[in-house]
Amino acid sequence: MEQLNSETVFDSPFVDVAQKRFRREDGSEVDRQVVEHPGAVGILAYDDEVVHLVSQPREAVGVDRLLEIPAGTLDVEGESDLECAQRELSEEVGLAAAHWERLHTIYPSPGYLSETLTIFAATGLAEKPGETDETEDIEVVRLPLADLDEAIAAIADAKTLVALFLLRDRLRGKRG
Amino acid sequence: MEQLNSETVFDSPFVDVAQKRFRREDGSEVDRQVVEHPGAVGILAYDDEVVHLVSQPREAVGVDRLLEIPAGTLDVEGESDLECAQRELSEEVGLAAAHWERLHTIYPSPGYLSETLTIFAATGLAEKPGETDETEDIEVVRLPLADLDEAIAAIADAKTLVALFLLRDRLRGKRG
Repeated sequence: MEQLNSETVFDSPFVDVAQKRFRREDGSEVDRQVVEHPGAVGILAYDDEVVHLVSQPREAVGVDRLLEIPAGTLDVEGESDLECAQRELSEEVGLAAAHWERLHTIYPSPGYLSETLTIFAATGLAEKPGETDETEDIEVVRLPLADLDEAIAAIADAKTLVALFLLRDRLRGKRG
Repeated sequence: MEQLNSETVFDSPFVDVAQKRFRREDGSEVDRQVVEHPGAVGILAYDDEVVHLVSQPREAVGVDRLLEIPAGTLDVEGESDLECAQRELSEEVGLAAAHWERLHTIYPSPGYLSETLTIFAATGLAEKPGETDETEDIEVVRLPLADLDEAIAAIADAKTLVALFLLRDRLRGKRG
């Protein structure tokens, strides 16, 4: 498809909305309102015992403590997605990883949201405390790998569900 | 948490943005900009041979044809989420289902988006053509269950990935 034009109809430090016109492959033209997002990363950080998750208030969905993989928005100019993932892992969980691997890129809500989110696997973990954001209220949760199936049944965050399903496949592959 | 106030700062037929203030459980107050969405449903419709998917242009993420489970927004007043799922299955795939089951509710992007999406399993399928929306360009794709692992590796839509992982678990449970 080809984007014919785009006009920002709402602009804020957090979220933009654009009115766009596209020409599809079949030649037809469509108008779409798109919530513009710079993209994000999520980090599946695990060792032989646990996967490192975070729990935080998520006002947008009215949840006091939502369990998620560490994650962040690509909002620092010049920073790559891998660098963003490394910074977030340090800031949110206090860890560095020797090995990084791109696992999967997902579209959280492709009907109207431009966000793409790349899930990285981070292994070979060592302590590395990073700067913490005092406006955030993040608790680290170390989920035992033995409790993965229970966690999958209870988790509601889409990126975290996908990450834990992928982790389960990796662990089964190792065992098998 | 408690919502103290909310002001709509952007309003359109498709997307609203609200500026909100919340009091957290610890007593602190935070301001959040929230993209407001009425919620959605996704339908995991399958029989012994195939799972019924749809392929459509998704301009928001710049993809000519994205493979997804049938889905829809809760934008018809007075319609329940189950009724919405039944209507979408008929409109997008031309099917009715004898058995409906709530599988999982996910938050696609809980940092700033209020959307919650419930995935239903739909089985006992029979033909039931519904009204089609001529502005939509939807193709039905019948994915053989034997190709599920390949599909999971290739799919980018978050709700569809979660649904296919859940389907794989159900099929394994049946076999085991």
